[in-house]
Amino acid sequence: MSSKSVKLGIVGLGRWARVLTRAAGKSEKLEIACGFSRSQEKRDAYQNDCNIACADSMEELLANPEIKGIILTVPNEQHLPVAEQVARAGKHIYTEKPIANTLENGLQIEALQHRYGIQVMVGHSARLLKGTRMIKAAIDSGEIGRVSLIEANFSNERALELTPDTWRWYRDKAPGGPLSQLATHQFDALHYLGGEIEEVVSMAARLSPVGAEVDDQSLTLMRFKSGAVAYVGSCWTSPGIYSIRLFGQKGLMHYELDFSTWDTPDKLHETSELYIQRGKNGFSKREILTIPPGDMFQDELEMFAEVCAGGNGCELSAANGNVAVAVVYAALRSIENNGAAVKLQDIFDDAQANIETPQVNFI
Amino acid sequence: MSSKSVKLGIVGLGRWARVLTRAAGKSEKLEIACGFSRSQEKRDAYQNDCNIACADSMEELLANPEIKGIILTVPNEQHLPVAEQVARAGKHIYTEKPIANTLENGLQIEALQHRYGIQVMVGHSARLLKGTRMIKAAIDSGEIGRVSLIEANFSNERALELTPDTWRWYRDKAPGGPLSQLATHQFDALHYLGGEIEEVVSMAARLSPVGAEVDDQSLTLMRFKSGAVAYVGSCWTSPGIYSIRLFGQKGLMHYELDFSTWDTPDKLHETSELYIQRGKNGFSKREILTIPPGDMFQDELEMFAEVCAGGNGCELSAANGNVAVAVVYAALRSIENNGAAVKLQDIFDDAQANIETPQVNFI
Repeated sequence: MSSKSVKLGIVGLGRWARVLTRAAGKSEKLEIACGFSRSQEKRDAYQNDCNIACADSMEELLANPEIKGIILTVPNEQHLPVAEQVARAGKHIYTEKPIANTLENGLQIEALQHRYGIQVMVGHSARLLKGTRMIKAAIDSGEIGRVSLIEANFSNERALELTPDTWRWYRDKAPGGPLSQLATHQFDALHYLGGEIEEVVSMAARLSPVGAEVDDQSLTLMRFKSGAVAYVGSCWTSPGIYSIRLFGQKGLMHYELDFSTWDTPDKLHETSELYIQRGKNGFSKREILTIPPGDMFQDELEMFAEVCAGGNGCELSAANGNVAVAVVYAALRSIENNGAAVKLQDIFDDAQANIETPQVNFI
Repeated sequence: MSSKSVKLGIVGLGRWARVLTRAAGKSEKLEIACGFSRSQEKRDAYQNDCNIACADSMEELLANPEIKGIILTVPNEQHLPVAEQVARAGKHIYTEKPIANTLENGLQIEALQHRYGIQVMVGHSARLLKGTRMIKAAIDSGEIGRVSLIEANFSNERALELTPDTWRWYRDKAPGGPLSQLATHQFDALHYLGGEIEEVVSMAARLSPVGAEVDDQSLTLMRFKSGAVAYVGSCWTSPGIYSIRLFGQKGLMHYELDFSTWDTPDKLHETSELYIQRGKNGFSKREILTIPPGDMFQDELEMFAEVCAGGNGCELSAANGNVAVAVVYAALRSIENNGAAVKLQDIFDDAQANIETPQVNFI
């Protein structure tokens, strides 16, 4: 470990903490120096599995002056209270996606930055996928011309396996089903590729063969401020897929990857495909592009190390994390209103009003 | 040519008549025996190019008792008057897609069948693509399980080349742009794959770099009576693509073909791709399926020969042709109403009312 590496703490020591700890172990730029969970059992298991010391209390972890930032992998509804505690201690925050369980909480987390002079980063790792970066580079260089339409899909078979004792069974716990669980990742990726989002139209369906009450099909249309448009589909009752197709005036790019290797991102490039089709017609003129190896989890943690070292924000910002949540809210409102287009700004305005005058739930 | 082959006439002798005449020439089951166009010049050119005699008048063509059916490749707004003339002569009708320029006309063409005891067939050839047939076979055999979501796209660069002297420049001539020109083919294909369509939500955008007044991006969501859902995207400002992806509970199928070989369908299988992905995750577990050679134009003409020989309808029916037009109408109404879902039955009811009490245009 380099002496220049940034020391981080991690709170919430479940499965995901191990994925990130493994990614951190490959980096010279950061070191996870200390963990914490309220559960003694989890602390012991993590310390044993990962060979990283654990603090006995949150206070002890936050009192360590060497630790510049804290990684949160706690459940979504704990993001706000834990983030407040971390921010008060003057540490930067990395929180897993979504930024919070509600947009109101997400906006309050975003506000911690100004109040406590810290930065909040959200782990929307999908935008760091090498294929997605290559598409963005082709947009920025002008290679594929003005972006017209983006189509994305993120699907898996989760709803085929739901049981009433899992939280995803319930409509209020997983609103929109794959909308809030999968599509939201694509909302962030498309926000990255297409720019500011203006309005949203959405449709949902429930085809569950097991009788779950949650919706299991999600289809969302978006209009960007640029005038371009997009579709995000998510099916919770089929084999897994993650894909992005982008139509530009000079080229079309298609990216598809094997979600089964998501937890081992250094293998993703081996089972991904990216092609560009230039000129008029020509499926047969497609050019397959080579995707370099990458590790989106290592990349995002190194991004967080830079945030901690420099005190500046990054593209995986709280504000962008809140946009992804706001699109979910807009989609839910559109579904309730029989497909009517919903402006993203209205969603933000309503959430802000709710923070000032709290109520149960505005969806 | 077999003595059993069915003799057909063809009316409207432009480019498309030649594509169909070439396909007919490969079949033992039918023979295009006579052509007609109001233009002497076109009759001469067709007779010269295709070595097929032309009648001097529509009456002469229709008086020929050997001719059992007439192929119409006249402009869309002429479908109804010409079809009426053909039906009165007791001949079966094959008309190019769309069935008519308006749903009202389409329904009146459909009604000719009962009134004159003839059959009307609509050339929605895309549903005869071998890849589409293979997807349908996988649905029908139960191989991919219950259908949840279908995603389709049909795009090309037409809007990049528009000029004010072409009809596609104008919003009233090509309503919805690629919606009525390209997406409508996918509406028929998805009606074939997903069954009866219940409601439609749609969004459009105009990104034309040349200043055309027509929309050039079309995104439509559909809900089937089965509960399954679908998306059809069409971009008029990008390289060409035709694709269908279908999510079933046991498998996912993806089909993509090279539109640049559309007019030579016997080459389509060489530049198409179809894969099936079975089980949970597994882009890497995709199985590439071999698409056999085919010729959708020959297939549809042979289907028409059977209609003429037996007097029974076929799946490329007037009723199905009207569904594709009705989805376009529903999408246009949804766009006008800011994304609100539109029931297909309401569109049919309104069109029927318009026929009984005509007005200018109900869209």
